[in-house]
Amino acid sequence: MSVIYDRVALIGLGLIASSMALAMKRGGLAGEIVGTARSKETRNAALEIGFCDRVTETAREAVKGADLVVLCVPVGAMGVVAKEIGPHLKAGATVSDVGSVKAAVIEAVAPHLPDDVHFVPGHPLAGTEHSGPHSGFAELFDNRWCLLVPVPGSKPDAVAKLRALWEGIGAHVDEMDPEHHDLVLAVTSHTPHLIAYTMVGVADDLRRVTDGEVIKYSAAGFRDFTRIAASDPTMWRDVFLTNKDATLEILGRFTEELFALQRAIRTGDGDHLHDYFTRTRAIRRGIIEAGQDTAAPDFGRGGGTRK
Amino acid sequence: MSVIYDRVALIGLGLIASSMALAMKRGGLAGEIVGTARSKETRNAALEIGFCDRVTETAREAVKGADLVVLCVPVGAMGVVAKEIGPHLKAGATVSDVGSVKAAVIEAVAPHLPDDVHFVPGHPLAGTEHSGPHSGFAELFDNRWCLLVPVPGSKPDAVAKLRALWEGIGAHVDEMDPEHHDLVLAVTSHTPHLIAYTMVGVADDLRRVTDGEVIKYSAAGFRDFTRIAASDPTMWRDVFLTNKDATLEILGRFTEELFALQRAIRTGDGDHLHDYFTRTRAIRRGIIEAGQDTAAPDFGRGGGTRK
Ligand SMILES: NC(=O)c1ccc[n+]([C@@H]2O[C@H](COP(=O)([O-])OP(=O)(O)OC[C@H]3O[C@@H](n4cnc5c(N)ncnc54)[C@H](OP(=O)(O)O)[C@@H]3O)[C@@H](O)[C@H]2O)c1
Ligand SMILES: NC(=O)c1ccc[n+]([C@@H]2O[C@H](COP(=O)([O-])OP(=O)(O)OC[C@H]3O[C@@H](n4cnc5c(N)ncnc54)[C@H](OP(=O)(O)O)[C@@H]3O)[C@@H](O)[C@H]2O)c1
Repeated sequence: MSVIYDRVALIGLGLIASSMALAMKRGGLAGEIVGTARSKETRNAALEIGFCDRVTETAREAVKGADLVVLCVPVGAMGVVAKEIGPHLKAGATVSDVGSVKAAVIEAVAPHLPDDVHFVPGHPLAGTEHSGPHSGFAELFDNRWCLLVPVPGSKPDAVAKLRALWEGIGAHVDEMDPEHHDLVLAVTSHTPHLIAYTMVGVADDLRRVTDGEVIKYSAAGFRDFTRIAASDPTMWRDVFLTNKDATLEILGRFTEELFALQRAIRTGDGDHLHDYFTRTRAIRRGIIEAGQDTAAPDFGRGGGTRK
Repeated sequence: MSVIYDRVALIGLGLIASSMALAMKRGGLAGEIVGTARSKETRNAALEIGFCDRVTETAREAVKGADLVVLCVPVGAMGVVAKEIGPHLKAGATVSDVGSVKAAVIEAVAPHLPDDVHFVPGHPLAGTEHSGPHSGFAELFDNRWCLLVPVPGSKPDAVAKLRALWEGIGAHVDEMDPEHHDLVLAVTSHTPHLIAYTMVGVADDLRRVTDGEVIKYSAAGFRDFTRIAASDPTMWRDVFLTNKDATLEILGRFTEELFALQRAIRTGDGDHLHDYFTRTRAIRRGIIEAGQDTAAPDFGRGGGTRK
């Protein structure tokens, strides 16, 4: 592949930024990768690991002369960063981000950008429960989706170029509007995370079941929850605070359905339970057919075939 | 290893029974494995795959002369099977089961067993979302826990022998009383399953987010839920109907905590969210340290390192 942007600046150098940088290097997609992060420790790590060609102490230095600037900080920090870099952006540059929420990020970032830069928000649908510069790997986005969320005024050329970058990184790219993005993610990611956090918190609280027992006997189901609930607290706090409406809407539907199942358990209505549990299998089949997961036994639950 | 029981009878030949049989064969733990299942199809499959040496049409035939009988049917069917086999059990035989709920199974099975057999209920904490005789594999129980739940009158010798069998199958064995078992499992398995079923049901219902989108963009968090929610509807209906009290108790705690988090989202209380999300990480660390899962990135969520 060949260079798509001569100079890329990454603001924030955690899991997502380091994985992007490693994938851009793998594909030879960027002439130079400049990075910056809040802490000296992270900046040094980026140089040691080698996913940045150069690091700067401040974001305003990092964006100087950059053709693409990607904001890779928690959603709640995007506005402050945008305000800092706004006056220092090169004319004609593209500004993007990787935040898990889109409407709130656009609202926070757009006002700080000058008219002569292109703003093309984005969100790669890939991650792990690990964070920081040491957690990245070049394959993170391979065959995953990256959603681009153009705003009124995003130039088709700028969108196409960013799309080419993400495809070079290994992802499939789709476009979506911000509100729909936030609703879809509330269903497929944000509410499931909140629920997993809650369930793990309940287990932790329960006095008659010791932590030791929870840990020892967590073979089935619960273990997946603990993995989800090990994700970065700051990132997820920001997600829920900024995708409030969609999350609360989906939570409302969730508790409504949960109460119906709870009632079926209390009244011994086995048919209701059986019907409900049968219906949800179809979605799983769809995911396997769409190649988003494998049907291999034991993934995250049993003991056998996992490597 | 050497033969522990000369003849083992398995009643029900699905995921758990077929995995047990394959593991017993791997270890040379049983002189003969006799099996039976409701349908001719399953009985034939057991012979074809070869995990049973012999199959019989009825449970009463299967248990004749058996030194160990293991009930491997859904929890709700245990009582009926026990009633059928009771009069045909060999004196001195051990009867066990693998049901996911213990108090209700003991109540349903014990009255049908003659005084001259040993009843030692059990529950291996391992499984997948697949079921039936084709889904079994010998490694399912390797390094997993099997809980034995002796009842008043379970002879220490009989318990020790069954423990040796499960250890030969590859599991670690612990003992626990039935009520505590049911509470621990309500926390670590039953309630998480109900929640996953509910969340997948909500996604399925939502008209503005199409199934296609849910399936396509299910990279983070939700995908684990769909795996859990693909488990056998009959098994799980029976679990919730028979572990009603503990499940309802844990569900009550769960909704209480969920409402507190929901309120924090609504009022924008970021500190509450951040504190909660920080606390739940500790449990995950404990599970990894206990060797019940790996810290490898991307397990069930991202795109990269999975095999
Ligand atoms: N992790 C996922 O699963 C995932 C998936 C898709 C999208 N995202 C989104 O990607 C973004 C980054 O996530 P990540 O997982 O890469 O996070 P991460 O590994 O925790 O890295 C975050 C980076 O942002 C910096 N940072 C944190 N707070 C800041 C602040 N207030 N001001 C300036 N810089 C700050 C950190 O600097 P220091 O290292 O110096 O502290 C760090 O370099 C978030 O918006 C998140 O929503 C995450
Ligand atoms: N799957 C798990 O994750 C897991 C983990 C630990 C414990 N368990 C427990 O293990 C037991 C078996 O589960 P499994 O996953 O092996 O189930 P499975 O794969 O669905 O197999 C169930 C077996 O029971 C037979 N059966 C079903 N209903 C019956 C009835 N009403 N009367 C007589 N036989 C009947 C079936 O016969 P046909 O094949 O002829 O229909 C089949 O052979 C359950 O009690 C479950 O709670 C399951």
